[in-house]
Amino acid sequence: MDAEDILSLKTLLVKVFGSIGSVSGGIYTGKEGPLVHSGSCIAAILGQGGSKRYRISWRWLRYFKNDRDRRDLITCGAAAGVAAAFRAPVGGVLFALEEVTSWWRCSLIWRAFFATALVSVVLQTSMAYCSDGGCGLFGSGGLIIYNIGDVSVNFRLAELLPVGILGVIGGIFGCMFTLINGRILRFYFALHTNNGPMIKILHVAIVSLISTALMIGLPWLGDCIECPTNIEETCPTTEKSGNFKRFRCPDGHYNDLASLIFDVNNEVVRNLFSVGTTNEFTYKTLFIYMVQSYGLALITYGTPVPSGLFLPIMITGASYGRITGMVMRSLSPGLSELDEGLYAVLGAASFLGGAMRMTVSICVILLELTNNLFLLPLTMLVLLISKSIGDLFNLSVFDQIIHLKGLPFLEEHADDYMKHLKAHDVCSSSLVTLDAVESVRKIVDTLQRTDHNAFPVIVKDEVTQQPIFHGLILRSHLLVLLRGRHFLASVPKDSASDATKSFKSVDFGKPGAGRGMSIRHIRLNPAELEMFLDLRPFTNTSPYTVVDTISLSKAYAVFRGLGLRHLCVIPKIQSGFPIAGILTRHDFIEEHILMKFPHLKRAKWTPLQVHLSAIRKVLDFRNLCKLS
Amino acid sequence: MDAEDILSLKTLLVKVFGSIGSVSGGIYTGKEGPLVHSGSCIAAILGQGGSKRYRISWRWLRYFKNDRDRRDLITCGAAAGVAAAFRAPVGGVLFALEEVTSWWRCSLIWRAFFATALVSVVLQTSMAYCSDGGCGLFGSGGLIIYNIGDVSVNFRLAELLPVGILGVIGGIFGCMFTLINGRILRFYFALHTNNGPMIKILHVAIVSLISTALMIGLPWLGDCIECPTNIEETCPTTEKSGNFKRFRCPDGHYNDLASLIFDVNNEVVRNLFSVGTTNEFTYKTLFIYMVQSYGLALITYGTPVPSGLFLPIMITGASYGRITGMVMRSLSPGLSELDEGLYAVLGAASFLGGAMRMTVSICVILLELTNNLFLLPLTMLVLLISKSIGDLFNLSVFDQIIHLKGLPFLEEHADDYMKHLKAHDVCSSSLVTLDAVESVRKIVDTLQRTDHNAFPVIVKDEVTQQPIFHGLILRSHLLVLLRGRHFLASVPKDSASDATKSFKSVDFGKPGAGRGMSIRHIRLNPAELEMFLDLRPFTNTSPYTVVDTISLSKAYAVFRGLGLRHLCVIPKIQSGFPIAGILTRHDFIEEHILMKFPHLKRAKWTPLQVHLSAIRKVLDFRNLCKLS
Repeated sequence: MDAEDILSLKTLLVKVFGSIGSVSGGIYTGKEGPLVHSGSCIAAILGQGGSKRYRISWRWLRYFKNDRDRRDLITCGAAAGVAAAFRAPVGGVLFALEEVTSWWRCSLIWRAFFATALVSVVLQTSMAYCSDGGCGLFGSGGLIIYNIGDVSVNFRLAELLPVGILGVIGGIFGCMFTLINGRILRFYFALHTNNGPMIKILHVAIVSLISTALMIGLPWLGDCIECPTNIEETCPTTEKSGNFKRFRCPDGHYNDLASLIFDVNNEVVRNLFSVGTTNEFTYKTLFIYMVQSYGLALITYGTPVPSGLFLPIMITGASYGRITGMVMRSLSPGLSELDEGLYAVLGAASFLGGAMRMTVSICVILLELTNNLFLLPLTMLVLLISKSIGDLFNLSVFDQIIHLKGLPFLEEHADDYMKHLKAHDVCSSSLVTLDAVESVRKIVDTLQRTDHNAFPVIVKDEVTQQPIFHGLILRSHLLVLLRGRHFLASVPKDSASDATKSFKSVDFGKPGAGRGMSIRHIRLNPAELEMFLDLRPFTNTSPYTVVDTISLSKAYAVFRGLGLRHLCVIPKIQSGFPIAGILTRHDFIEEHILMKFPHLKRAKWTPLQVHLSAIRKVLDFRNLCKLS
Repeated sequence: MDAEDILSLKTLLVKVFGSIGSVSGGIYTGKEGPLVHSGSCIAAILGQGGSKRYRISWRWLRYFKNDRDRRDLITCGAAAGVAAAFRAPVGGVLFALEEVTSWWRCSLIWRAFFATALVSVVLQTSMAYCSDGGCGLFGSGGLIIYNIGDVSVNFRLAELLPVGILGVIGGIFGCMFTLINGRILRFYFALHTNNGPMIKILHVAIVSLISTALMIGLPWLGDCIECPTNIEETCPTTEKSGNFKRFRCPDGHYNDLASLIFDVNNEVVRNLFSVGTTNEFTYKTLFIYMVQSYGLALITYGTPVPSGLFLPIMITGASYGRITGMVMRSLSPGLSELDEGLYAVLGAASFLGGAMRMTVSICVILLELTNNLFLLPLTMLVLLISKSIGDLFNLSVFDQIIHLKGLPFLEEHADDYMKHLKAHDVCSSSLVTLDAVESVRKIVDTLQRTDHNAFPVIVKDEVTQQPIFHGLILRSHLLVLLRGRHFLASVPKDSASDATKSFKSVDFGKPGAGRGMSIRHIRLNPAELEMFLDLRPFTNTSPYTVVDTISLSKAYAVFRGLGLRHLCVIPKIQSGFPIAGILTRHDFIEEHILMKFPHLKRAKWTPLQVHLSAIRKVLDFRNLCKLS
C-alpha cells in the first residue's frame, strides 16, 4: 500500500468488504480496527472534497483544503469509527484523544463529540426503526452490547487485594502479548516483503486453516455439563446464538467449550461477561479457550486481512478474569462477593491495559459496553495497575506497530538523546533557496532536481546587498504559480506587483491525496522559461523559526507542539547566509538521527531506565530551567 | 485575596469551612465549585512541599519544584475535586481536560485518571464501610447520586424534534444566564472594591435574607395534591428527606412546591429527575420554582461565600426540562414515550451546555450522576445544540468570570487582531540585560530596580567585541546565587568556572507560593558588592526565541502552545543589539495590547462575526500558508 493510499476510497472499500469477509469467515479478529480505519477514510475523502479518481467530488468541501482542518476531520472520523464499533460515543471521543491524535487542540474535543453524538443518535434511531427485527441481526443486541447493568457490585476492602493481583498478572500477560506480537510481526513483514503477492494469500489460507482446525477440534475436549435450572434461556440452545451449545452431548446437557468456540466473537464476550451463571464453565474449558484465544490473536494479527486487536485481547482477558473469579470463589466462598462475570470484565480490562496502555478510553468503552457504573472504580484500579506494569517493560502494541512499520510518527516527548544535540546538527541537508524575483527556468529546475516541499526565499538588502531571509514558499504554491503562467518579462524595478490579482485564494488550497500536481505535468515553452516570477506576494513571511544553537529537544517541542511541517533554522550569529536550514518531520526521526550520530545509540532510551530516572530528572538543573 | 493566596492553605480552610457553612445554611449554591478549588489547593500545597507558614512540610515533595509538574498536579487536584463532588471519576478527568487546563499534555490524562481512580476507590470502599449508617448521611445516597438507571429509554424519530427545541430554548436561557450574571458580577465587584469589609458581610446577610424569605414564603403558593397510591414511599413524608412534604396540607396530601423548596439541593434534583412520578408537580409549581431558582442563582453567585454554579444551574434546567416533559405529554399523550424525569435530565443538560459550554465532561458527569446510559445519545444531542446556541452570543460563564477578574488567562487561540501586529510591536518595554560576568552591585541594583523575572545574558565576542545573546537567567536563580555568596574577586580570564560545584540542583528548585525569596531579604556587605559573579554556568543557553518580524498571533501560538513564561524576541536582521525584547504573559493580554494600539479596538472580535467569518477564513490565502 502506498503512503498516499492509506486513506483513499480504495482502502475504504478494501477495509469494509475485507472486514466483513474476515469477521464472518471466522478468522480470529475484531471488526473495530477496520471500522476506525474506515471512519478515518471517509473523513479523509470528505476532507479532500470527494474522490476525483472515481469522479465523486463536492465543491463546498473545499473548505477543508488546509492541513489543520483536514487533520481534525480525520481524527473525528476515527472517533466516529470507535463510537460505531462499540456503540460507545464518549469512548470514541476519548479514544481519539488518547490514541489517535498527535496534535491535540481543545476545539477538537468538541468536534469529535459532535461526530460521535451524531453516530449515537443515528444508531439509536435506526435501532428503534429496526426493533421489529426487519434488519436481520442489527439492533437485536440493544444499544448496550454486553449489558450487565442490573447487577449490583458489592465489594469489601479485602477484595481490593485479589483485584490488584489480577491487574498485575493481566498487565504482565498484556505486555508479553506486545512482546511476542512484535516478534511475529517482524517475521511476517520479512515474509511479505521478500516474496510475491501469492505468499500473502497462502499466509491467509494457513491462518484460516489453523483457526478452523482449532474451532472444530477443540470442542471435543469440552465437558458435558448438565443444564442449569434457574435460567430463562433454553438449554441446550436451539437458536443460532445462545449460551449453551449442545455439541455431542446428551439431552439436557451442553458442551461448555463448544459454547464458547461456536459463537461469534460478540456472543463469546457476552457469554463470558454473563452474570449469575456460576459454574457455567469448567476451569479446563476456560483455560483451553484462553490459550487458544491468546495464540490465535497472536498469529492472526499481521495477516494481510483487515483485522482488529481489541476484541481478541478482550476475549482472552475475559477468560482469564473468569478463571480468577472462579479461583476467588473456591478459595473462600464468603470472601468474594463479586460475580464471575464481573471478574471477567476486570480481566478484560487488565489485558487491554497491559497491551494497549490506554486508560480513560478503555475504561469508558468498557463502561459503555457493559452499562455497569458500579464496577467503574475497580475497572479504573485494574487499568492503573496493568498499564503501569506494562509501561515498565515495553511500548504499547500500537506504538510498536508504528515503530515496526517505520511510520514517521513523532512521540509527544523528545527522546533524551536529543538533549545532546543542537538544531544545526541534524538539518545539514542541502539547502535550496530561491530569490525573491526568480527566473522561471531556475524554479522549474529546482522543482525537478529536489523533492523539498518548501523553499526559503531570499531578498537582497537594497543598500548593503546582504541576503535577507524573506520567508518560506511551498512547492505546491510554486506549482500553482507556474500553472498560472502569469510571468514577468523582466525583473521589475519596484517591489509593487499585482500578481496576486491573477489568483484566487482557493487556487492555493491543499489538494487531495493522490491529486497533487507534479512538476512533470507542467509543460512550459522556451520563451516562458526565460521569464520571471515575483515570489514575494506568495511567500509566507512569518514562518516559525529557531536559532541554530537551540537544543534539538526544544526544537522538537516547537515542531511537535505546534504541528508544523517545516521549521526554519536561522543562525544565531549572522555572519553569512541568513538561513541555516529547514527541519522537517524526517529530521526528527530516530533512525535518521542515530545514523548521523551512532555514538548516541547507547544513550537511546530503554523504558526501564527512563522510569527509574524520571525521579532523578526533576532534580536535574537543566530540567528546572526548561520552562523559563 | 492576593494572587499568591489563591491556592494556599488559608484558602483551603476558608473554602472547606465556608462551603460547609454556606451549603448547610441554605444559601442557594453548590458545593462542587469549592470542592474543585479545595482539590487544587491540596495539590498546590503538596506540590510546594507543604505549607511553611504553618510549619507542615515534606522533603520528598521537592520533586515537584518545577513549573510543569506543579501545574499538572494542580490540574489533577481539580479533577479529583470534581470526581469527589459528583462521584464521577471519568467526568472529573474530562472536566480537567476541557475546562481547567490551558496547557494540555497527553500524559496528563493518565495522571488525572490516576487521581480520580483513587478518589473513586476510596469513595466506594468508605461507603461500603459506612453502609450500616454509622457515618450519618454519607453513603446513604449510594455511589450514584441520582440513580435512574433502571428506566428504559424508548424514543421515536419524531421525538428528536421536541428534544431539539428543548436544546435551543435551554441554550438561550443558559447564555442569558451568563449575560445577566456578568452584569451582576460587575456590580458586585464595584461594590466590594470601593467599600470596606463590612459591606461584604452586609451583602451576604441580605442575600441570605432574600433566600430565607423566599424559602418560607413561596410554599404558601403551592397546591395541595393528593398522594399517589402506586408508590412505595410514605406520603406525606415523615423523614427528613423525601419527595412529599406536607406543609399545611390535609392528611394524605402533599404541597408540591414545599416538596421542592424544603429539600436540600441534592434531594431537589433527585426529586425532579425521579421517574414514574407523572403529575407529581403542577405547572404552576415548577414554573415558580424555576424562576426562583434562576433568580437566586443569579444573585447568589458572586456573594463573598464559597459557592458553585453547577448545581443551581442544573436545578433550574431540571425544572425547565420537567415542564417541557409535561407539555409534551399533554400535547399528544401517545407522542412522547420519554418520562418527565428523563426530560428533566435533558433540560439540565441544556442549561448547563448553554451556560458552561462544556460538552463531553457535562455529558459524562450527567451519565455518572444518573447511571442511565440509554439517555446518552439524547443528552449529547441537547448539549450539542445548546452549546452551539450559546457560543453564538457570548462567552461561557467561567470564561466571563476570568475576564471580569482580569486574570491573565490566555485563550487557546490568538485573537484576530493579533494578525495585524508583529512581535516587536508589543515587547518594547525596557529591556534590562546582564553581562556574562557581572558585578554583584549591578545584579543587586537590577533586581531592586526592576520586577522582571528573567534577564537576557549578553557575552562579548572575543574577536569582534560584538555583543552576543548568550541566554536567559531567572530572577529566582540570581537570588540563589546571591544568597550562596560564592563570588569572584575579579573577572576571570578564561571561561572555565567551577561555580556550579558550590550549588546543588535542588537549590534552584521552584519555591512554593508565598515563599519566594526577595532581594530585600539578601544583605550583602560593601566588599561583596564589589565582587563578580559568572552567570554563564547558570544561564539557560537554549531559550525559545522568535524573530521580531513574526506575526504576533504566531508568537502567541508558540508562547501558549509550549506553556512558556518568557519568549525571547531576536532581531531578524542583526545590526545592533542581539536581543530585541522578551515577551511575557502580560504582553499578550488584550487590554495591554489595545492600550498601545487603540485603533485595533474596532477589529476586536465579536463572537457572531467570528462565526460567520469562520468559513471565509479558510479561504484566506494567509491562512492557508499558516501551517507551512
